Formats: sequence, structure tokens, C-alpha cells
Amino acid sequence: MDLKAYLANRSALVDAAMDAFLPKAKERPATIHAAMRYAIFAGGKRLRPVLCVAATEACGGETSNALAAACAVELMHTYSLVHDDLPAMDDDDLRRGRPTCHKVYGEGMAVLCGDALLTEAFIVLAKAPITSRYGIREIVAELAETGGSRKLIGGQVMDLEGEGSQLSKRELIRIHEAKTAALLTTSLRLGAMAANATPAKLDAVTKFGYNLGLAFQVIDDILDVTQSTEILGKTAGKDQSVGKATYPSIIGLDASRKEAARFTKAAMTALKPLGKKAVRLEEIAAYLLQRDY
Amino acid sequence: MDLKAYLANRSALVDAAMDAFLPKAKERPATIHAAMRYAIFAGGKRLRPVLCVAATEACGGETSNALAAACAVELMHTYSLVHDDLPAMDDDDLRRGRPTCHKVYGEGMAVLCGDALLTEAFIVLAKAPITSRYGIREIVAELAETGGSRKLIGGQVMDLEGEGSQLSKRELIRIHEAKTAALLTTSLRLGAMAANATPAKLDAVTKFGYNLGLAFQVIDDILDVTQSTEILGKTAGKDQSVGKATYPSIIGLDASRKEAARFTKAAMTALKPLGKKAVRLEEIAAYLLQRDY
Repeated sequence: MDLKAYLANRSALVDAAMDAFLPKAKERPATIHAAMRYAIFAGGKRLRPVLCVAATEACGGETSNALAAACAVELMHTYSLVHDDLPAMDDDDLRRGRPTCHKVYGEGMAVLCGDALLTEAFIVLAKAPITSRYGIREIVAELAETGGSRKLIGGQVMDLEGEGSQLSKRELIRIHEAKTAALLTTSLRLGAMAANATPAKLDAVTKFGYNLGLAFQVIDDILDVTQSTEILGKTAGKDQSVGKATYPSIIGLDASRKEAARFTKAAMTALKPLGKKAVRLEEIAAYLLQRDY
Repeated sequence: MDLKAYLANRSALVDAAMDAFLPKAKERPATIHAAMRYAIFAGGKRLRPVLCVAATEACGGETSNALAAACAVELMHTYSLVHDDLPAMDDDDLRRGRPTCHKVYGEGMAVLCGDALLTEAFIVLAKAPITSRYGIREIVAELAETGGSRKLIGGQVMDLEGEGSQLSKRELIRIHEAKTAALLTTSLRLGAMAANATPAKLDAVTKFGYNLGLAFQVIDDILDVTQSTEILGKTAGKDQSVGKATYPSIIGLDASRKEAARFTKAAMTALKPLGKKAVRLEEIAAYLLQRDY
């Protein structure tokens, strides 16, 4: 199977699991359940859940054992998009090529929809199978801490507060660590835990995730400058228009591309302890480096 | 110790535990941590966490074993208030006698603050001690399902969607079950679980919580009509001004008072299997029936 077919296959597995976990769109109160499904089934890349599943496989585990954690990280990611897009935050009308949740369901319902997706992440995660090394307590703590005020939410706060001010590269990396690398890393770690990975292997996917997360965000910054709204499926040029510090704005486009390649290489190097089983993770890292949306 | 001293003592224990769990107000990014503490330390009644602790005690458990679950339910309750108060939802300027979170920190930060409090509930809950009967998986599933789109969030959706339309008493009870009784019941159940309660005792606090929750919400509806903004610490007469169906609007004030007394009596009756240890829960139910704010 080539990478494209692999990604399509694993995304479909995640989507089927998600469909089974989520309340049906017509279940009362129907508006909230329709909104949750609108936000989740929007044709996203499913990067985080696929990384979760691929990490399980790279650590010698069964794909199916990772699906609850995979859906939980995607639920958390999607809630953060729904809330970040709100008029009171990034005020975006377009996401994954479609009107954002609040444009379709209204602001109040979009707040509740994000809340429900976040809560659903823990409903689903509580169903995850455990292994001899990692229990539910550790799994729940990992996802909750990653989503909390010190990581994911803290990153969005720093991002909003940094708008219009000149940040240093160090400060920008700190935002990227919290906003992007943390949840990517946790996606991989939860996958490794589902495979009962040894501490050495867990450490390897952690370092892979950290570097991949930083590479991913640098590339996101680059694409925001170089691509059109049509290709991105979200508003292009947004960072500059709100005075947000980005890699290209701090070190320029060429140096940003080199930095993305450097982080990607560091990510690949981190995979060494996993041997040949890590080939899908390597392929995904290479694919993300050259993506154009 | 009389009830007033008991409530003050247990609230203080909860506050001390909460203070230890939450990130310090100055921890970066400081705005979100200050906002979380502003919302949490606002002089609320701490009804849910005190019920959690009192349920543990009524089932023969140690008070200290209930504190993580007690803080988790209060974090979930407070997040729901912060989001419900937003302009896009109930649009309230006053809560617990002070400006609401979004009036102080802005709308975007209030959304993130609610998100962070909700996420923190699971960070804290993952630290809860387990018992021989009840594990972390069951505890996390209980809180997450109570907070989800079928209960707490679903109740708020039905509440918003019901504004301006004439609901039946049955429909109103359905909203109250989801919006109020579910989290009160879970507060008690998590406390009972922390005491390793037998299924019969867990069932008793469940029935107590359900009836107490319905009584509590009828009384809330009554107070919204009969009390002033100053005494309530939140905007009085709000239900009527937005055309929200309430007990008094459907069956009148006198019948509502009788209904509250009936639910309270049912709650007390449910406590029978707990014997004399349930005296604090009885006292709390009696106190809530005659409260004036």
C-alpha cells in the first residue's frame, strides 16, 4: 500500500469509529448533535488520529486498539478549531473549505458545540483499552494536560495576546510547542501507549512528535503566505492581516523552509529506536514537509 | 457542629484543595490563569462539591478522599456558568454579585477560560483515589457523560431553544433533569464512589440527587421571580424578560412551592438506606428548600 492509500484507509477507520462513538444527528437535542457532526465530518486531514494509529503500529500494536484514543485527539483538535474560529477569537468564516460552525449554527451553538466535542473526547477516551504498562488514569491525564491552560489553551492565549507585537523566534517556538506540537505529540504517545510500548519507544515517538509538530507549524505559517484561500480551505494571508508573528515574518520564507526541513530531519532521526516498523511515520513526516495545503 | 458551620468548614476544605490544584494566577500565560481563578473563587455556594463530600461521609468514607472529585464537579459547574453567561448565550453581566468573566477579561478569553476550567476538571479527576468497587474509568465516564451533549450541554441547548415558546411541564422537567439534576446527582455519586459505597447506597444517593436537583431548580425559578438582583447576586427577573418557561410561569408560584416541597420530601425519603449517617444530606435538602438566594 502506498502512503496515499494508507492515509485514506486509516482515515476511513477513524471516521467509522467516530461515527459509532458520536450521538446520531437526529438524537435530541438534535441541533447540538448535528453541529458536532458538521464540525467533525468536514473532510479534515485526520492527521492527529492517523499519527495515533501509525504510532500504535510502529510499536507493534493492533490498529483497532488505538481507535478510541485516535478519535479522542481528533475531538479535542476539532473543538479547538470551532472555538478558535469564533468572532471573539480569530473570527474566521471558512474552515476546511466550508462555512465555520458559528456561521452555520450561530455563535451560542458553536460555543456549546466546541464544549460538547471537548467533553466527548473524554467520554470516548474512557472507553480506551489499557495495556500492562499504561492505565486509564495516565491516558486521561495525558490528554487533559495537553488540552489544558498550560498547553493547547495556553498556546491560543499567547497567540491572541501576541497579535500586533513583534515576537522573538524563541517566543514563537514557545507558542508553537503549546498550540501545535503538544497535541501532535500526545496523539503519538497515546498510540504508543495503546501498543504497550517500552519507555524507550515511547520516548522515541515523543521526540518525533515534538519535532514534527514544530515542522508542521512552520509549514502552516509558510502556506498561509504562499497559498490561496481556495487551496487552503481556510482564509489565506490571515496571519499577516491580524499582525500575527510567524516564521516567515521573523526569519523570512527561505530560512523558514530550511527550518521546516531541519525539524523534519530531527523528527526522522528520533524514530531510530523503532527500526523498520516506523516507515509509515517517516513517510508521513516527509509528506507533511512537501504538502501544499 | 450546626449546618452553617459544617457548610463553611467543608467549603473551606474544597477551596484549599482547589487552590492547590489550579495553576497559580501568575503562571504564564497569566491572563488565563487569573481568569480561571476569578471564575472559581467568586464566593459561590460550593453546593456541588459539598454534596460530593457529604455523600462520601454519609457512605462512611473519608472526607479527604472526595476532594479531587469535589473540585472536578465544581470546575465543570463553573465552566458552564462562564459559557452560559456569554453574550451569544444568556448575555449576563452579573454572577455571584460580581461582573461576569467576559465583562472583566473579554469574550475570547472567557471562552478559553471556560474551556480551561472544563479541561482542568479532568486533570483533577485523574488524580482521584479509587476504591475496590469503582475505578478511574468509571469515574471519568460518569463526569464526562454528565457534562456532555445528552445532559448538561443538551439542557442548555433545550433551554436556549425553548426561549419564547410555551413548554409543557414535562418538557420543562426534561430540561431541569439535564441542566441541573444530572450534575447534582453526579456530584453525590462520585462522593459515594470515593467511599466505596455498596450499589444500594449508590442507588440511594442517586435518587436523592435526582429529586434534590429538581427541587433546587424549581426554587431557582421561584427566586428569579421573587427576589432582587442584589440578593441573588445575578440578574433577577431574567427568565421572564427572555421569555423562558419556568415552573412559576407554567403552574404558578404557589403550586411551584408545593412542587419544590414534594421533590424535597422525595429526596429525603430516598436517603433511608443510609440511616443516621445521612443527616447532613437531609439538613442540606431542608436548607435548600427554604433558601432565599
